[in-house]
Amino acid sequence: MLVEGVDFTRDAMSLEDAGWRSMAANLSDLAAMGARPVLATVALGLSEATSGDDVRRLYAGIAACAQRWKLAIAGGDLSRAPALTVAIAVVGEVRASHAKRRGGGRPGDVLAVTGALGSARAGLELSRKPQAIAPELSESARQAFSRPQPRVDEGRFLAASTAVRALIDLSDGLSTDLGRLAAAGECGAELHSVPVADDARAVARARGEEPEAFALAGGEDFELLAAIRARAFPHLAARYAARFARPLLPIGVLREGSGVIWNGAPLPRTGWDHFAP
Amino acid sequence: MLVEGVDFTRDAMSLEDAGWRSMAANLSDLAAMGARPVLATVALGLSEATSGDDVRRLYAGIAACAQRWKLAIAGGDLSRAPALTVAIAVVGEVRASHAKRRGGGRPGDVLAVTGALGSARAGLELSRKPQAIAPELSESARQAFSRPQPRVDEGRFLAASTAVRALIDLSDGLSTDLGRLAAAGECGAELHSVPVADDARAVARARGEEPEAFALAGGEDFELLAAIRARAFPHLAARYAARFARPLLPIGVLREGSGVIWNGAPLPRTGWDHFAP
Repeated sequence: MLVEGVDFTRDAMSLEDAGWRSMAANLSDLAAMGARPVLATVALGLSEATSGDDVRRLYAGIAACAQRWKLAIAGGDLSRAPALTVAIAVVGEVRASHAKRRGGGRPGDVLAVTGALGSARAGLELSRKPQAIAPELSESARQAFSRPQPRVDEGRFLAASTAVRALIDLSDGLSTDLGRLAAAGECGAELHSVPVADDARAVARARGEEPEAFALAGGEDFELLAAIRARAFPHLAARYAARFARPLLPIGVLREGSGVIWNGAPLPRTGWDHFAP
Repeated sequence: MLVEGVDFTRDAMSLEDAGWRSMAANLSDLAAMGARPVLATVALGLSEATSGDDVRRLYAGIAACAQRWKLAIAGGDLSRAPALTVAIAVVGEVRASHAKRRGGGRPGDVLAVTGALGSARAGLELSRKPQAIAPELSESARQAFSRPQPRVDEGRFLAASTAVRALIDLSDGLSTDLGRLAAAGECGAELHSVPVADDARAVARARGEEPEAFALAGGEDFELLAAIRARAFPHLAARYAARFARPLLPIGVLREGSGVIWNGAPLPRTGWDHFAP
């Protein structure tokens, strides 16, 4: 459920982009279970201030994202509401033996992500305050923020491997979602490195921030985080790179205990919390 | 999608009832296609004024209705929102050859409903202004409004018959939904009688209103309206009565042309329109 003024504002993104993002966030949840997208329902709450053109723009973004991943929009609803509201539900299919959850990780498992992090946050920050960085980095950050790509194919690939014991999508930021994956498996974790996307590094530096901390707190990258049996990791990573022409990036390990250690100290959860004060 | 202040208010119903109704409305849509309920997702938008107890009450009503029809709640979401918002999506299963739509009716088909109408509206009116009517009628109206029963089994029974050519649920009132069923089949309709529930008749009379008009305009009864091949109607109605111990009530016929005729005059749509001025 995305609500205008809470989850998005029109000064930070177009309604097409808000529509795309709302569908992409749902597809990312399917990706994190290794499911094939099948159908979606779309319910819209329209405020007095919502015009017909607004609805068309919002829906165009929703439909474009659905079409990209071959998802049928099978139903929905319209209501009046005090703020423009988008509630999307998706249904996917996955072989029961392949379906992954966030709680299957075990001490010793390698933690790996499907891509470098921080691009979506970089795009958000640029939408708020432009920075003097290379135009191609600015454009890639803008794309990552406005048209995020859920890792549906990557999720299906990873879920099909018995070496992958837990999967989660990084919708709320690595610092938050890594803690969730570890806690769900009743493990702790050691984070060894944070792969920072080039655009995120440039924006962080322009803002005088430490790139790793910037990327750790950045939500909505929609990359996947996997816990993988250590012995099987090298072979799986090789197959992954051959299939997707991008590396599966190791970032740390699960360990006995609880909490996440980063640079020798407990990692605070700096990601997105919907009900934080 | 139900929004507090638009689709429900706490002075007219408890949050448990609002939760039940929100799930029942979804199940009624499945019933109208003849589908077996399989799973639901529940997204809640919580306003600043929403307490933890409010959420528990709302969810208890949602869960009670889901349990009654053996529906798994398979996922969902939470967001902040300016008004308490419930967005439920349901998935059902139906054999492709059984699935009904609203547009299959043909001139000559008998129109029939699964129950007498107006009870939910009677309950709504009583919640706004008590009337001196028999206590058992007051109670039945209150129940119909607060705990409506979607006709899931009746819908599956009707959908399994090839004699049933179109189905719709009466969520927006007979005057509106009959017009929709006729128009979807590119037909007109003649309404011969409006079966009025006893409680609705009593409330209408106490308010000085004509009972048929009262029932025609009353939404959210969640009875089903079917268009049935005329020759097959008697046999189907007999089997229906034997199965459900309630009659399948004939109310009119589809005819060539367009529009709905009632008492020799065009029937206005007096039911619920979400975006009426």
